[in-house]
Amino acid sequence: MVCSIVGLGLMGGSFGLAMRDYFEKIIGIDHNENHCKEAINLGLVDEIGDLKSIEISDVVILAIPVKGIIKILNDISKLNIKSNLTIIDFGSTKKSIIDSCPKNIRKNLVASHPMAGTEYSGPSAAIADLYTNKVMVVCNIEESGKEQRKVAIDIFNKLKMHIKYMDANEHDRHAAFISHMPHIVSFSIANAVLKQEDKEHIVALAAGGFRDMSRLAKSNPHMWRDIFSENKKNLLDSIEAFKSELKKAKEMIENDKWDELEEWMKMGNNLHKIM
Amino acid sequence: MVCSIVGLGLMGGSFGLAMRDYFEKIIGIDHNENHCKEAINLGLVDEIGDLKSIEISDVVILAIPVKGIIKILNDISKLNIKSNLTIIDFGSTKKSIIDSCPKNIRKNLVASHPMAGTEYSGPSAAIADLYTNKVMVVCNIEESGKEQRKVAIDIFNKLKMHIKYMDANEHDRHAAFISHMPHIVSFSIANAVLKQEDKEHIVALAAGGFRDMSRLAKSNPHMWRDIFSENKKNLLDSIEAFKSELKKAKEMIENDKWDELEEWMKMGNNLHKIM
Repeated sequence: MVCSIVGLGLMGGSFGLAMRDYFEKIIGIDHNENHCKEAINLGLVDEIGDLKSIEISDVVILAIPVKGIIKILNDISKLNIKSNLTIIDFGSTKKSIIDSCPKNIRKNLVASHPMAGTEYSGPSAAIADLYTNKVMVVCNIEESGKEQRKVAIDIFNKLKMHIKYMDANEHDRHAAFISHMPHIVSFSIANAVLKQEDKEHIVALAAGGFRDMSRLAKSNPHMWRDIFSENKKNLLDSIEAFKSELKKAKEMIENDKWDELEEWMKMGNNLHKIM
Repeated sequence: MVCSIVGLGLMGGSFGLAMRDYFEKIIGIDHNENHCKEAINLGLVDEIGDLKSIEISDVVILAIPVKGIIKILNDISKLNIKSNLTIIDFGSTKKSIIDSCPKNIRKNLVASHPMAGTEYSGPSAAIADLYTNKVMVVCNIEESGKEQRKVAIDIFNKLKMHIKYMDANEHDRHAAFISHMPHIVSFSIANAVLKQEDKEHIVALAAGGFRDMSRLAKSNPHMWRDIFSENKKNLLDSIEAFKSELKKAKEMIENDKWDELEEWMKMGNNLHKIM
């Protein structure tokens, strides 16, 4: 099988690294020429191609932002693709992608979201085990073709991923809570500290806890603005849910309700029983 | 030298593990009998003693909550201690401890705060390298005796810690930003998710980012209520600073100000340049 990867950043590059032996050939496609050169130098793909390469592909991985995925699905719908082509998109939100997918290639698409990543980006951030033991969410699988489902599942198994099936709306809501809101929170912590006059002295005391809480604030702003805008409603809902807890805590602290605060923290401890 | 450790939890236990060879003898002191048994079984200390053991000690480590430290300093001030006794407290806030330290033992006290810890507690959580390469904040050192300073610094060097000297007020403010507020934030994230009807489905998607952001919500509620109440004013200030950033982000998202949001995130990226 020939595989094309559109987008040679952390996600696409890591996919290439992990799957070089699985495919006969992996073709990389990226607007960014430096990314293409890097991907070849790092051995993430066998060769560089363009949109036309998709016509000779059996599998296409779309590892670019959601807006780009929506656009390229439209382009692909006009190509002379193999009828059994499997298109797997790695978009961070799923509903807008599925809703806008051209009908003639809907069965080709397996709408997926790997719950994997690091705070780094670009081809040089690619790591071979990025996907190992991580969750792959697959949305609205009943709308994908039978053959395409099988190809995608084989690939996810090869990557040693745990597949979870989900409705696209449900996915987008969950992703807001598990990923998008925590990113906003981490950036808020970073900026709150950076606004302090003695910021250098503050961060000099940073230990593991602060490093964890501020790690996501290293993430790529350009990439995340798109994710946030794509999932605006769910993101605002999850921020609201978070704010309501923060407000409770703040009021308990202000009013010296330490017993209540302790109970509230005990509730929080329970998260790790279900995780 | 004989060393007593008051409090055989994560902090005191880890100190014992790391320093067994440095002292002639380490005596453990803890109200909790199970902790005492565990500490002996785990080899954290040589023997178990009581308050009176401090009279034969050259060094005392106070690894208990701030309220307990304030109380025991008062008890120690009435004992027949060696005149050159070095008391090192590991309290999470420093001003209230220093302010309430009885005058007759003020020179014996080296008020310190190791910027180290894990989300676990109790003797079984002790690890030998907890302090290695971590920051030890030492407050108002000019009020400690010359000999006590030397003993404390030798111990911190032996632990391979980086010593930072600081005024107690400054320490308490910084600790709020670097540790106390992030704990409240982490508990707020945990509780926000736990309030959702489909919480199990949400956490099924958890990857590294969410695990980092929710790790501090595993912390011991009883211990943390005291830290929060001791540092109430600074904590509320730091929560306010955080809330103000969160509010900005939320408004930019609501009003589709994606360019501004991207700039705000780019600012956040700068944290890691100074950390």
